[in-house]
Amino acid sequence: MSTRIAFLKGHGTENDFVIVPDPENAVDLPPASVAALCDRRAGIGGDGLLHVVRSAAHPEARHLAAEAEWFMDYRNGDGSVAEMCGNGVRVFARYLQHAGHVTEGDVAIATRGGVKAVHIAKTASGGPATGDITVGMGRALLPEGGVTVSVGGRSWPARNVNMGNPHAVAFVDDLDHAGDLLTAPPFSPASVYPDGVNVEFVADRGPRHVALRVHERGAGETRSCGTGACAVAVAAARRDGVDPRITGIPVTYTVDVPGGTLTITERPDGEIEMTGPAVIVAEGVIEGEWLENLPR
Amino acid sequence: MSTRIAFLKGHGTENDFVIVPDPENAVDLPPASVAALCDRRAGIGGDGLLHVVRSAAHPEARHLAAEAEWFMDYRNGDGSVAEMCGNGVRVFARYLQHAGHVTEGDVAIATRGGVKAVHIAKTASGGPATGDITVGMGRALLPEGGVTVSVGGRSWPARNVNMGNPHAVAFVDDLDHAGDLLTAPPFSPASVYPDGVNVEFVADRGPRHVALRVHERGAGETRSCGTGACAVAVAAARRDGVDPRITGIPVTYTVDVPGGTLTITERPDGEIEMTGPAVIVAEGVIEGEWLENLPR
Repeated sequence: MSTRIAFLKGHGTENDFVIVPDPENAVDLPPASVAALCDRRAGIGGDGLLHVVRSAAHPEARHLAAEAEWFMDYRNGDGSVAEMCGNGVRVFARYLQHAGHVTEGDVAIATRGGVKAVHIAKTASGGPATGDITVGMGRALLPEGGVTVSVGGRSWPARNVNMGNPHAVAFVDDLDHAGDLLTAPPFSPASVYPDGVNVEFVADRGPRHVALRVHERGAGETRSCGTGACAVAVAAARRDGVDPRITGIPVTYTVDVPGGTLTITERPDGEIEMTGPAVIVAEGVIEGEWLENLPR
Repeated sequence: MSTRIAFLKGHGTENDFVIVPDPENAVDLPPASVAALCDRRAGIGGDGLLHVVRSAAHPEARHLAAEAEWFMDYRNGDGSVAEMCGNGVRVFARYLQHAGHVTEGDVAIATRGGVKAVHIAKTASGGPATGDITVGMGRALLPEGGVTVSVGGRSWPARNVNMGNPHAVAFVDDLDHAGDLLTAPPFSPASVYPDGVNVEFVADRGPRHVALRVHERGAGETRSCGTGACAVAVAAARRDGVDPRITGIPVTYTVDVPGGTLTITERPDGEIEMTGPAVIVAEGVIEGEWLENLPR
């Protein structure tokens, strides 16, 4: 590994990432290095790492190079590989814009979950890019039935929604009732999600406007969850008797997450688009020596 | 505030800091900006911020300029002002060395807690600076009596040690017994520390070698606490029947903290020196626009 690695830090609704620009795929990023970079005290700190590589330069994305010039080689904070991250794609697109690789408008981004259609809105002022970014998040599956989730001695029915990952969405009167979500809320029957489930608690804020708190499977309570916001919007629409696949009219929900606000639109073909902010916080170089001599 | 602010990130035994070099005290750092920079998801992230200013350029340190060229304008992660931070001083000194302002050897650093004598050890190789850094931490006061601290239904007697801030030091057989230190361990009588206390749990690791876990007042369990390590070394020495103020011989304890290892020496005059690592992790510039338009 080279001793000075360029990086940026950015976040989308406070889901935050270490960004490592590496167009030619020349930086070695083994899991231990990724985990060290994402370590919030001994490293830079982030929920995950966005390795920015030209699709043509990455063996996992070469076949997508004709469709999407850039590949989001996404890593979880523990160094493991992940397919996709909705908030991460927005920050990835913002970085491409920040670096001058793309401009406002449509851009296709390759991920392990396929090529994602992204749209970068115009920036109002002449300042740095701040326009919201929209990403296609795929379709929701709503299997019949549900589970009961419990926090602090109270229980709520929850709707099952699958966005590629499983969600249990519970509507509550008051988000404070969700209590401490650092530990996974128990649910029953447990057999519905043998590998666990992401749990969203949702309160109404106004017409087609909800707020959520989320326990992410394996991560605890987080500031934002892109697939969770989509699952919540769809569950809220169905609860409200709205289904764009039947009416042919797109439906949009505003979803407040602890780290900001996302706008979720379900289209008549069932495709879900998530729109939200993405911020580049800082950029610089990593002093690579500590990374090469990991004491762990 | 200028729109691009230089910064570094560093840590000492995983007590981590945003470093803002600002020799002429030209960067405006109101509490809200400090808190935003220390925010681990929406900002850079750190336990605190080290504002690096020439003493002559800072109204709080001008009178110390003849003794110490540089002033550590230390801020807590919430933006409030603090007098001193032992791990912070090491990282501050490493930054001065990294920037070429000082070389190996002795350096005096002005803080709100007075001028601190610091020594930077030689770096073994020709690579980046990695020599351990020693800082004078003052004297310990050991008032008579103690308290009883409790975690998870178990209780231990704890020694009172004051290092400028109060510590309750409890020796345990197994650090796992300290359980979950995210919340403050109850202690009695409560009247001993009306403003709360830092609590250290200590286990023996060998001759003059201990390990600790710490609950820092107001912060929860942390990876390292400089004054806590000093308090623990002194409490261990007294428990072991050792007092350099009587014998005239310095005594040194190795103190393992969750984020690394510190070496604590108590001298015959009662002065305590703390030696440990300091690492510059990264450097760069903050994209200042988000900071100027804080959404909070």
